[in-house]
Amino acid sequence: MNTFGHLFRITTWGESHGGAVGVVVDGCPPQIDLDISTIQFELDRRRPGQSHLTTPRQESDTVEILSGVFEGKTLGTPISMLVWNKDARPSAYDHLKDLYRPSHADFTYQQKYGIRNWQGGGRASARETIGRVAAGAIAKQILREVSGTETLAYVKQIHTLEAEVDADMVTLEEIEASPVRCPDPIVGPKMVERIDQARREQDSLGGVIESVARNVPVGLGEPVFDKLKADLAKAMMSLPATMGFQIGSGFEGTAMTGSEHNDPFYVEKSETDRIRTRTNNSGGTQGGISNGENILFQVAFKPTATIGKPQQTVDMQGNEVTLEASGRHDPCVLVRAPAIVEAMAALVLTDHLLRQRAKS
Amino acid sequence: MNTFGHLFRITTWGESHGGAVGVVVDGCPPQIDLDISTIQFELDRRRPGQSHLTTPRQESDTVEILSGVFEGKTLGTPISMLVWNKDARPSAYDHLKDLYRPSHADFTYQQKYGIRNWQGGGRASARETIGRVAAGAIAKQILREVSGTETLAYVKQIHTLEAEVDADMVTLEEIEASPVRCPDPIVGPKMVERIDQARREQDSLGGVIESVARNVPVGLGEPVFDKLKADLAKAMMSLPATMGFQIGSGFEGTAMTGSEHNDPFYVEKSETDRIRTRTNNSGGTQGGISNGENILFQVAFKPTATIGKPQQTVDMQGNEVTLEASGRHDPCVLVRAPAIVEAMAALVLTDHLLRQRAKS
Amino acid sequence: MNTFGHLFRITTWGESHGGAVGVVVDGCPPQIDLDISTIQFELDRRRPGQSHLTTPRQESDTVEILSGVFEGKTLGTPISMLVWNKDARPSAYDHLKDLYRPSHADFTYQQKYGIRNWQGGGRASARETIGRVAAGAIAKQILREVSGTETLAYVKQIHTLEAEVDADMVTLEEIEASPVRCPDPIVGPKMVERIDQARREQDSLGGVIESVARNVPVGLGEPVFDKLKADLAKAMMSLPATMGFQIGSGFEGTAMTGSEHNDPFYVEKSETDRIRTRTNNSGGTQGGISNGENILFQVAFKPTATIGKPQQTVDMQGNEVTLEASGRHDPCVLVRAPAIVEAMAALVLTDHLLRQRAKS
Amino acid sequence: MNTFGHLFRITTWGESHGGAVGVVVDGCPPQIDLDISTIQFELDRRRPGQSHLTTPRQESDTVEILSGVFEGKTLGTPISMLVWNKDARPSAYDHLKDLYRPSHADFTYQQKYGIRNWQGGGRASARETIGRVAAGAIAKQILREVSGTETLAYVKQIHTLEAEVDADMVTLEEIEASPVRCPDPIVGPKMVERIDQARREQDSLGGVIESVARNVPVGLGEPVFDKLKADLAKAMMSLPATMGFQIGSGFEGTAMTGSEHNDPFYVEKSETDRIRTRTNNSGGTQGGISNGENILFQVAFKPTATIGKPQQTVDMQGNEVTLEASGRHDPCVLVRAPAIVEAMAALVLTDHLLRQRAKS
Repeated sequence: MNTFGHLFRITTWGESHGGAVGVVVDGCPPQIDLDISTIQFELDRRRPGQSHLTTPRQESDTVEILSGVFEGKTLGTPISMLVWNKDARPSAYDHLKDLYRPSHADFTYQQKYGIRNWQGGGRASARETIGRVAAGAIAKQILREVSGTETLAYVKQIHTLEAEVDADMVTLEEIEASPVRCPDPIVGPKMVERIDQARREQDSLGGVIESVARNVPVGLGEPVFDKLKADLAKAMMSLPATMGFQIGSGFEGTAMTGSEHNDPFYVEKSETDRIRTRTNNSGGTQGGISNGENILFQVAFKPTATIGKPQQTVDMQGNEVTLEASGRHDPCVLVRAPAIVEAMAALVLTDHLLRQRAKS
Repeated sequence: MNTFGHLFRITTWGESHGGAVGVVVDGCPPQIDLDISTIQFELDRRRPGQSHLTTPRQESDTVEILSGVFEGKTLGTPISMLVWNKDARPSAYDHLKDLYRPSHADFTYQQKYGIRNWQGGGRASARETIGRVAAGAIAKQILREVSGTETLAYVKQIHTLEAEVDADMVTLEEIEASPVRCPDPIVGPKMVERIDQARREQDSLGGVIESVARNVPVGLGEPVFDKLKADLAKAMMSLPATMGFQIGSGFEGTAMTGSEHNDPFYVEKSETDRIRTRTNNSGGTQGGISNGENILFQVAFKPTATIGKPQQTVDMQGNEVTLEASGRHDPCVLVRAPAIVEAMAALVLTDHLLRQRAKS
Repeated sequence: MNTFGHLFRITTWGESHGGAVGVVVDGCPPQIDLDISTIQFELDRRRPGQSHLTTPRQESDTVEILSGVFEGKTLGTPISMLVWNKDARPSAYDHLKDLYRPSHADFTYQQKYGIRNWQGGGRASARETIGRVAAGAIAKQILREVSGTETLAYVKQIHTLEAEVDADMVTLEEIEASPVRCPDPIVGPKMVERIDQARREQDSLGGVIESVARNVPVGLGEPVFDKLKADLAKAMMSLPATMGFQIGSGFEGTAMTGSEHNDPFYVEKSETDRIRTRTNNSGGTQGGISNGENILFQVAFKPTATIGKPQQTVDMQGNEVTLEASGRHDPCVLVRAPAIVEAMAALVLTDHLLRQRAKS
Repeated sequence: MNTFGHLFRITTWGESHGGAVGVVVDGCPPQIDLDISTIQFELDRRRPGQSHLTTPRQESDTVEILSGVFEGKTLGTPISMLVWNKDARPSAYDHLKDLYRPSHADFTYQQKYGIRNWQGGGRASARETIGRVAAGAIAKQILREVSGTETLAYVKQIHTLEAEVDADMVTLEEIEASPVRCPDPIVGPKMVERIDQARREQDSLGGVIESVARNVPVGLGEPVFDKLKADLAKAMMSLPATMGFQIGSGFEGTAMTGSEHNDPFYVEKSETDRIRTRTNNSGGTQGGISNGENILFQVAFKPTATIGKPQQTVDMQGNEVTLEASGRHDPCVLVRAPAIVEAMAALVLTDHLLRQRAKS
């Protein structure tokens, strides 16, 4: 279904070319300060047309809050938010009406539903993530107020270019200062070039987003199916174009032995003598539950399916045809992805924060 | 919570050292042929003590069906199954009562609940997966009867040894013929040696399980949060010791361009002229929905946390102590993991098969 | 939470005095014909200001569909609908800011959330039911197309006046022809008088809505917790002001013996020889599952809490005060309730219709 | 499905004539004292064969706890409990294999599933409630420890005999002292006679259970769909044989005016100056949320469908046949119902208690 979360629950709706896209946030605790400008700030990080590195679709993506807030505070009732679709150009899709674009959802939607809104990507469009980002902005505010937890994400890799980033220290300002949202001062500019080149070549690039959550309370996550790592994985793999998720040592850690991989406990001397681990191969969770170390994970994004180059495909009548270049394409969605990944991480953490409250 | 699935739903219960472990399967369609021996077959693939390559804990893991089946057929009512814990040795854990074993769930459970069953791993034990495997055996039977779909999994990598396997052709017999469940005749035997070595060194190894689902109907999965890849990711990352999930081209695919990565459609000429893709970088899903190609994914398992070597850790009183070798350990859980991964894949596919039925 | 249903699922949002109220409908099958005028028709039956018998609040309650529909057909994606609040008069509530109105939700909301939108009833307002009615109109359309099932509701009793209605034969036209939606030509006009009298006396009246579902497929409902009667009861008792639910013989049936109450089966001779029951004390379900007979139930509504007479109450500071007459009140919500009861019944039946499909 | 509850969640399983019946309780807070004897006590109140007033089926209904408890305390993990079926007499049902018993679930199960366990009532049997009562005993313990809340239920009416009971003062001891669980010393003995008479006449009786919850915290329940009254209604109407639910003034209250029905607030002078209502027509909830007054509701039970008298019915082949007397029948299930109603009320209240915790 179109709902995510158990106690902090969002329902998104809207096609890329219907009237609007939006989200209903249910389960938000009451009396949380809610400033619409912080929601708009996150949407601005996600919206198209930010720079020449992204899709030229022009959308201001201005959010409206329709319920759930009173005199600047949440009521504890559902918060409904929407963004109108303004730069939808249905006619630009006329030639796609009968085609299945390679590696898009056209074919599977048509098979599943027997109908699809061919004027754009429908629910498979990245516009669907607007609701996630708006809801995530509220989740971030809850994390900030309740536990001082912060989620951050940045571009770790684009195509074959990999950045060096200190996940424990990086700041939002450093990420936003980079036009590709890669806070590595050496590799970031190279990524800009690489994206420009892909755009000129009518091609697209993939990459990896890395995300860290800092100051996470111990005890979030459930032992079995709703492990924190499982819910994070689902959150990330529910995003368009994602092909992989790894936490802590990830796939590389499979080449270590147990004695190398285990994270030794020690006591960090302070007034409250906190138990910590010397290494963090676990990525901040053990037994599916947060252990108080930073949660660190990566998400793989395939290169965007929309490209300008001609491609072989078939139409709905089963004829093999050539799909010619479409008017506008986004050479690398990674640039806009950090806001989305942060939002999804915040949603998962907030949900588990509320679940943990119910237990204690 | 301890429930997984929306329409085909399982609830597992049981600690490794309580009386028993089990599962309730809800939403199973009626009139499915159910042979207890096929369930036992899957449990036998998972159980400890199969060979010297696994934990020496001796458990026959004999399953009992307590409800939901009548005269060899499912009733459509909940199927309750249990396995008694027989070789639980609580006294073997006495010295662990106050310790936090590195990279185990001891610390996080104690912090989350303020109590834990220290006589074993509790819910974090791999014994919890017994219920998943038993339920998965039923899901496999449904897939077989309803859509002819098959899920298979095998060891793709152990430590630094990587196997070559043809995912489209490999058979269950080939997998089971290998003592490490790696159907590569060259690399498989090397893996046996490597595991033996690790056992002698009181250490443990991680690796990668690869899984394929063949003959999957087009149209399984939901567009947004419940994408097939998202539910598979959650299923796999909800398993103990998993650190990563990737589907199709996965992390490697991030270094491709869109024109390289897109899977071109073509028409496979036959009586029914099926639309297929020439490559399968998508791993069998597009827009989160199965496209009829084989679903192919990998799961990273960290090396088992239980090792024989002494380790530094802390106790509940905050003292730094040395954890001495425990009596028995499993040098590589990968050997027993294929049955578990197959089961989880079957559960996800069955759930979406039923969900798709409701739509059409 | 603010979500109802398992496979056909609605999420309502909105306060009576926020910007708008609305609903997201998830799980609607694709390719259903959807005519906005049928949705508006149901909202018009529910809206205030229809006649002097209801609240004088003036709201056109014009619905907008923002997603999920394409070229007159459902896409299978979420359908988002909203209605703007136009005649909200927040200043009319100024004197209520610190008061707890008797038998309203002011006190419990304030205690639960520590905050409330005191400019009206917030989520407790009957305006919340707009989303239910709009969603119910879609459910009715599905029932019509898929199984030919019809849900109807009408006023059975107001205050002490009880109507005679043949539930098996009554039509929508007969119900709508009555200004109180009571299709009894003798008692209906008396109800009009009684309501007029209550309005003049600044008082309010309660009553009973009776509802019938006809042409219901056999097999809807789940054996245990999600019995059809249980889900209907929850649906009805989730409406504002409802105090009771009964199905079939209801409370009166408790004075019968088993031999009187049991519904004997017989075979209705026809081409398909249908098994039926001679009586319908069961109200159309047995073992929680529909048996093909008409589903018949009643819902008790208390007299509306808002009255014009002065009342004793307390304020938030704990002072006992007199609540003076408010400007406008609705002497009997029963008149507008049939559309709401029908909608909820349609939502429950549609949800179970889809659930049943998944099984077969 | 076979699961009830959102945060405190039970899943029941088992047919009346399969191996066992049981329940998995998920979401139980950790560190709750759990004494198996209190669970057994509740099961003993529910079990058949307590006296000549109930079914002669002999079942000790001895509960086993298989998980989730360690050293007398809950672990926070799922609690699995089961009761073996001992006095199942499948052969006693041979003559029913092809028959549809009137007002039983035989016909609807067969139509829904195409298969049924005809050796007894399957999931429709009252034995299914064993799991509810066992889980409810745990819920009661949580309510006792956490909020001092108590749920009680008793027989209010059998056939035409109605008792006078002071719901605010009645005690468990008074209820249990009556062989029919009716604490009215005048009417209770008459009920015994009436039941004896029904048994001699091979007939059965229905009636009404009344239930009260005392010392309920203010703020339990959700404003819209999950109102406390809605969840209680669903809980009660999910029980076998229930035909109606009413809370507070119920159906009788529909004949009052608003000025008569509204519950005036006042301040109960004490150290903490509690806001209360002078009357309790609301039955302890307003706007769907508990207001701190006693929660009071009634549940209508139809006369048991199993009777000894011959009845007309049809068989699976569509022949009209006479169903002869079965060997044993329970003339009035009301006697055993109070434990079940209390359990369901406790489950609902506990679920909302945990949900409320998550908010604050």
